[in-house]
Amino acid sequence: MLTKSASQSLTEQLSARFSERIRTRLLAPGARLPSVRLCAQQQGVSPSTVVAAYDQLLAQGLVEAQKNRGFYVREMTPPLVNSAQVAIKSIANQVIGMTRAPINATALIRGMFHAVSDKPQPGMGVFPPDWLETTFMPAAVRKVTGASALKAFSLQYGEPAGDPGLRQSLSKKLAGLNVHASPQQIVTTVGATHALDIVSRTLLRAGDYVMVEEPGWAIEFARLDALGMRILPVPRRADGPDLEVMARYCEAHHPKLFVSVSVFHNPTGYCLSPGSAYRVLQLANAHNFHIVEDDTYSHLAPDHATRLCALDGLQRSIYVSGFAKILAPNWRIGFLAAPPDLVERLTDTKLLATLTTPALLEKALAWCIDQGQLRRHAQRIRTRLDVARARSVKLALAAGCTFAAEPAGLFGWVDTGVDTDMLSHRMLDEGYLLAPGALFHANRQPSTLMRINFATTQDAAFWQTFGKLRSGK
Amino acid sequence: MLTKSASQSLTEQLSARFSERIRTRLLAPGARLPSVRLCAQQQGVSPSTVVAAYDQLLAQGLVEAQKNRGFYVREMTPPLVNSAQVAIKSIANQVIGMTRAPINATALIRGMFHAVSDKPQPGMGVFPPDWLETTFMPAAVRKVTGASALKAFSLQYGEPAGDPGLRQSLSKKLAGLNVHASPQQIVTTVGATHALDIVSRTLLRAGDYVMVEEPGWAIEFARLDALGMRILPVPRRADGPDLEVMARYCEAHHPKLFVSVSVFHNPTGYCLSPGSAYRVLQLANAHNFHIVEDDTYSHLAPDHATRLCALDGLQRSIYVSGFAKILAPNWRIGFLAAPPDLVERLTDTKLLATLTTPALLEKALAWCIDQGQLRRHAQRIRTRLDVARARSVKLALAAGCTFAAEPAGLFGWVDTGVDTDMLSHRMLDEGYLLAPGALFHANRQPSTLMRINFATTQDAAFWQTFGKLRSGK
Repeated sequence: MLTKSASQSLTEQLSARFSERIRTRLLAPGARLPSVRLCAQQQGVSPSTVVAAYDQLLAQGLVEAQKNRGFYVREMTPPLVNSAQVAIKSIANQVIGMTRAPINATALIRGMFHAVSDKPQPGMGVFPPDWLETTFMPAAVRKVTGASALKAFSLQYGEPAGDPGLRQSLSKKLAGLNVHASPQQIVTTVGATHALDIVSRTLLRAGDYVMVEEPGWAIEFARLDALGMRILPVPRRADGPDLEVMARYCEAHHPKLFVSVSVFHNPTGYCLSPGSAYRVLQLANAHNFHIVEDDTYSHLAPDHATRLCALDGLQRSIYVSGFAKILAPNWRIGFLAAPPDLVERLTDTKLLATLTTPALLEKALAWCIDQGQLRRHAQRIRTRLDVARARSVKLALAAGCTFAAEPAGLFGWVDTGVDTDMLSHRMLDEGYLLAPGALFHANRQPSTLMRINFATTQDAAFWQTFGKLRSGK
Repeated sequence: MLTKSASQSLTEQLSARFSERIRTRLLAPGARLPSVRLCAQQQGVSPSTVVAAYDQLLAQGLVEAQKNRGFYVREMTPPLVNSAQVAIKSIANQVIGMTRAPINATALIRGMFHAVSDKPQPGMGVFPPDWLETTFMPAAVRKVTGASALKAFSLQYGEPAGDPGLRQSLSKKLAGLNVHASPQQIVTTVGATHALDIVSRTLLRAGDYVMVEEPGWAIEFARLDALGMRILPVPRRADGPDLEVMARYCEAHHPKLFVSVSVFHNPTGYCLSPGSAYRVLQLANAHNFHIVEDDTYSHLAPDHATRLCALDGLQRSIYVSGFAKILAPNWRIGFLAAPPDLVERLTDTKLLATLTTPALLEKALAWCIDQGQLRRHAQRIRTRLDVARARSVKLALAAGCTFAAEPAGLFGWVDTGVDTDMLSHRMLDEGYLLAPGALFHANRQPSTLMRINFATTQDAAFWQTFGKLRSGK
């Protein structure tokens, strides 16, 4: 809600709010601003204030007026050569009837960086900072940055595959998950995102087919699309990917890669069953494709959870994980563990893209792992998440939602009964960023589903606002 | 030279030396090992020692024997789908007659990471660590990693474009070079390499044409090739790129991008003249291509050196630089400054590849810049480099070399009068990594040129060994 202040008029505040959303693309090019009357009502200001604010946006070149149709966000940049985004837009325009453009993948990621408000954010993919506060992190950094230690590793590029000590620690850690990788099979990266990027760039060429679970993580779709790959969406079931669909894809398109989240799949929370895992690997052998297993949520799961890389022994599977979820998103440390015959090629791709990665944080992370600090921290987080999940589920059900998948892990896959694209825009005005279901599909479709973060949806306040706006009040 | 030791036999030492070179690809797949007689002579061991060592390599699966032809390094991985590498190999095989494969781009980069010996390395692209030792670097890290400061930025992803404080500092620093970029036009990256990668991925699609100066940096050619781009090599002259060749390319192929090092060009040390700069920009306007100006060596040059981005005002040019050369290679901090209408797309590409970059080192670097420490350090380095260059030039001339380009900046472009591919392999046996001229061409050709690093070639010992091996003794 806007309130009068000495420093900024209501008009200025309203215009600033819209221009920020346009800049961060929470309001995408082509989106229509709400009508003057509706906006005045939503924001609790007079229609003349809205008219003045829209005029400011017009003067700044952020929107354009279309006669008798209202104000539209201007195309700021040359349109992306990006078929998915074009598809997203045209589908959205056709189906939803559009007063505003849907929140797109980039907008959601940007939402992760621009605090929409100081409220807990249900659409975010990470834990709130106060969950991650630990005393051992500063100790780890001090440990590795004594003057001579800092110089020793700062003044040379370092090893292309990453800090040898961290790769040793990761090798031991993986053994605990029954994923057996020598330190020589491990390459560190700038977060798990970078590891997935390196795998795609190494194994695929533009035009290649790649199978990706659907629903799935928007960034994965967007990245593969930007690289010019052809995405084959594989429906994700409770026990694993739809094997019949995969088999048909294999016959028709000879895909080179399957991208999969086995444990606490994003957004459903599903975990792969041993039987499914076996059949996926049989299919991979029969049709000669590689598998990249994104184990980003491994720290939240028991060690014995079924992983393709454990069964396969890293023969045709590549393991990817990172520490943004459990330790420090900004440290940007991820890694991959690969079959011996792929490691050098993957390292070359890393070299061409970033040369090496910073050793300082890799050494600090290795210390956290070796001291057992990370393991104990992860246990505490798991306990805390179990409590939060129980509360969130209760509140979601009380708010009239149902769960499309059995609640587990970090995310809930919730059916709201209403279009979540529309809802997410209304919630934004109240300071909440949602993750609407349409975001998790290769070809965007309107959806009544949304992904919630159990750690940030255990407060009644969010569900009250949600309930009010969902019923259109 | 191999010497008997208690712990390892001569055979084991020799076999270990070859297997290390095969692993790091200083000996590439397909390369022939020297004949038993030649190897025995080169290494000062008996032929039976060589036979035993080759047998060990055979048993380890690293080489294969071809009847009556000798031992060849085995293809360890599925062959890269990489036209440049195939071209490199076939040209090399045709022209050089090949007892060993040429040092390739990846091998040279790997040479930057695996110390060949503790001698100064003439082929390396960075200053020796003792040149970079500063007292302010640890102070900067301490400054930004107090417990609460560390937590504040570690526990959230941070801004996609990079640390706001650093972008502010960089904006001011660029203004000193007459490159005017607001902090909003600046995006931080994992080194300048990552910045160039982001620009290519944003502006180009597989199959697009891109103009690159030749001779030029091997990594740039290799990266563009791996991305599926078509490289148009533009001869680099003393005052700038060959404009006639560029004009012909523009007519015939409509390239989308020109990659250029204006100041202290690698490997020649050439600097762009104002007249050339103006004509390049005219061509870019007429033919509608973007320019990415790689200003990696900016810290070694006077502020008033001619830069395309200064003339153009970042209209169709993108500025790229980093701090690996002047401060700390392992900190991996680079950045780009772009036209306002491209910044968001470039930021999106960064997001899809790495999400954000680590703020810790970005904040420490900002401190070094803001305190004036970096500027003073760069001045000291420039003075020291001037002395080293004078010495190196004298020694190179005394060794019978000539300079293909007027010595300036970090690198000398030296004509040795003999094939430098062959020479580089002999020098490797003596513990020196060279950068043979063939490395700096889009399509590898045998060359008598080599690039030397003035900071690491001021010792008479190197030039003595060089002189001895060059004359075939």
